Amino acid sequence: MDIKVVGIIGLGYVGLPLAIRCAEVGYKVIGFDIDPAKIDSLDKHQTYIAHLENNLIENLYNNGFSCTTDFSKISEVDAIIICVPTPLDKHREPDLSYILSTLDSVVPYIRKNQLISLESTTYPGTTDEEIVPLIQKAGFTIGEDYYVVFSPEREDPGNPNFTTATIPKVVGGYTKACLDLGVALYSKIVNQVVPVSSTKAAEMTKLLENIHRSVNIGLVNEMKIISDKMDIDIHEVINAAATKPFGFTPYYPGPGLGGHCIPIDPFYLTWKAKEYGLHTRFIELAGEVNRAMPEWVVNKILLGLNENGKAVKGSNILIVGLAYKKNIDDMRESPSVEVMEHLLRLGANIKYHDDFISHFPHMRNHYIPLDNTAITKESLQQFDCVVIMTDHDYLDYAMLLEHSKLLVDTRGKYTNVKNPKIIKA
Amino acid sequence: MDIKVVGIIGLGYVGLPLAIRCAEVGYKVIGFDIDPAKIDSLDKHQTYIAHLENNLIENLYNNGFSCTTDFSKISEVDAIIICVPTPLDKHREPDLSYILSTLDSVVPYIRKNQLISLESTTYPGTTDEEIVPLIQKAGFTIGEDYYVVFSPEREDPGNPNFTTATIPKVVGGYTKACLDLGVALYSKIVNQVVPVSSTKAAEMTKLLENIHRSVNIGLVNEMKIISDKMDIDIHEVINAAATKPFGFTPYYPGPGLGGHCIPIDPFYLTWKAKEYGLHTRFIELAGEVNRAMPEWVVNKILLGLNENGKAVKGSNILIVGLAYKKNIDDMRESPSVEVMEHLLRLGANIKYHDDFISHFPHMRNHYIPLDNTAITKESLQQFDCVVIMTDHDYLDYAMLLEHSKLLVDTRGKYTNVKNPKIIKA
Repeated sequence: MDIKVVGIIGLGYVGLPLAIRCAEVGYKVIGFDIDPAKIDSLDKHQTYIAHLENNLIENLYNNGFSCTTDFSKISEVDAIIICVPTPLDKHREPDLSYILSTLDSVVPYIRKNQLISLESTTYPGTTDEEIVPLIQKAGFTIGEDYYVVFSPEREDPGNPNFTTATIPKVVGGYTKACLDLGVALYSKIVNQVVPVSSTKAAEMTKLLENIHRSVNIGLVNEMKIISDKMDIDIHEVINAAATKPFGFTPYYPGPGLGGHCIPIDPFYLTWKAKEYGLHTRFIELAGEVNRAMPEWVVNKILLGLNENGKAVKGSNILIVGLAYKKNIDDMRESPSVEVMEHLLRLGANIKYHDDFISHFPHMRNHYIPLDNTAITKESLQQFDCVVIMTDHDYLDYAMLLEHSKLLVDTRGKYTNVKNPKIIKA
Repeated sequence: MDIKVVGIIGLGYVGLPLAIRCAEVGYKVIGFDIDPAKIDSLDKHQTYIAHLENNLIENLYNNGFSCTTDFSKISEVDAIIICVPTPLDKHREPDLSYILSTLDSVVPYIRKNQLISLESTTYPGTTDEEIVPLIQKAGFTIGEDYYVVFSPEREDPGNPNFTTATIPKVVGGYTKACLDLGVALYSKIVNQVVPVSSTKAAEMTKLLENIHRSVNIGLVNEMKIISDKMDIDIHEVINAAATKPFGFTPYYPGPGLGGHCIPIDPFYLTWKAKEYGLHTRFIELAGEVNRAMPEWVVNKILLGLNENGKAVKGSNILIVGLAYKKNIDDMRESPSVEVMEHLLRLGANIKYHDDFISHFPHMRNHYIPLDNTAITKESLQQFDCVVIMTDHDYLDYAMLLEHSKLLVDTRGKYTNVKNPKIIKA
């Protein structure tokens, strides 16, 4: 069976760069999304993801790309790659609704000899328990006239060192024939395909990667709290430990987790583990420690202002950095938002600075009507406290220090600087 | 002040290689130890540490080395480097008795313009709280006529890639003058010296390194238990995750922690943190998970034998590997001992194989009168169960699998092998 046409469902942070890469290597690509605004924008060759520029979209169309909200076109593709979100619901449990509604839209149009690949991060068992039965119910025999694999996305927006092509791709199949077809699909797209023995091993692989990060960040956040009490700078300690040439990998503390992966994915395993009577204790501890960080930062702001004889109520506070990590415009789950909302509740006057984000956007559960405040010598004079939340590279940290009355540093930018204006948080 | 003569106290796994290196770079070295057997052995040019061969000891003497149990010779040295053990007591609290009794022996003989460097792993504050006051009480002014630093050892016995000289060395001083002298001492010994701002930052650095390892091993051990229930091979998952070129570092599960660092050092911080009303939750969780591993392995042995209709009581079981890690002869805190004692309590007939250890040694709290059992096709026939505890490189794993009736693998040596004889533990 030869794959010529690839359908990609979900044209967001994962699906769009994947579509670009698939078209580049010669697949005919049809994009699917339930959001007509995305389709309109692409058809106008206009990007909606900052690091994917318009010329990439134009190239994509030059490579024969088309996109649609019409799922009946699923019958035209040889491979279906599902790149939809897998968030948590309000009780921090897996929300598979995007996957399930995608399947509802897709299954009526599937045909013999197609491959489905799920790329959305999810708990071990999802592919076999949620996708396979629907395909079987539609009358197909997996591994004979239909093929199913799981292959986790590993996109890292803003990472300048790796692209879709150069990040190895893990694939697990429902059967050996499924795996072989999955490997064939991805071998054209990425430099290295890593086959594993089952879909659930592939599902667990992605979770382990993000659990590893969440736990290591939780650990250094706990070490930050302990070091702070002992009057030790945790960033100095981490940098010294990082000189050990084996057995140590540095992770850095911060004001809280952000993004669409690390704060969310681990809890997919937590939920599934309960089915086996097991408790994911490291995940839960890391979650607890990391989620407490924004409030810890707010407390440091409070103590810093108090030293200057001021309350948070009525103080002018500048939040530097809205994005959840440096040099990108992504605000999903950003701890800056939580810190700002907390300070507003305490009665502060808040402004923000982030040259990647000119207006505070309308988010699903958050909105603060503010525009980007420029940083100048004069503008800094107005603030009782400046809080560095995101360590964008473009910021002038020496200038910030010189002209701020009080500077709360959540990113270790002033580790070797001694100045009573600096509060390490 | 120019350091010419270096006194090294404690001639064990840390002090002896350090003495060799110091003598090599031109320091006149006097070794001190309270154990006359070590002094006798060295004087006969006989090593007592497997990876430090006799010719190294001979060279050491050719470079002008001498050693003694007589601490009055402390007055002859310019720098005193303390490399004594810092174990835990029976309640898992820091046991500083080796440091304190060393200081008792040393202080009567100290003189102006000496440097003391403590290398033993310990909690932040030890140097300033335990060493400094004794020196001051003896009439010296630290930073003016006496100097004190902390510089943690980073020895990794059996590591073929790094030596004392090529592992960077962190140093923190009680004052700037102390730090400068410490840096001068170590700059001749190692390629890279890493100065930090205080003795407690240096103390914390070493703890963070080992806490990081303990927690990461704890995490993968928890993931092993969860994966086992889900019928996923954790080693396959870790190897797949390790193909991610950023944001992930592989750590491997095992039958429990061993050695003199990882199971012990983190609890030095746990103890000290209580002084600040803080709980080191990651350290304690990792300790709990890791300490439960030997029993988890015993349970896997029990279930494996049960499948074959056998009880542990009366079964012949071969433990492969006594050392706590591969390719060395070090049994300190080895989980093999705990598993063996547990199986003996359950009534098993135990033998062991480890070509690094010809007789089970008399350990502080353990002794099992056994000699190394050779592995042959015939000898394997006698055992109802073979348990791989240490993954020495010299072992023939294919041969072990072929001739064992039941093979319990705690090290992921058979990750991609399907054979009902293998129990993954």
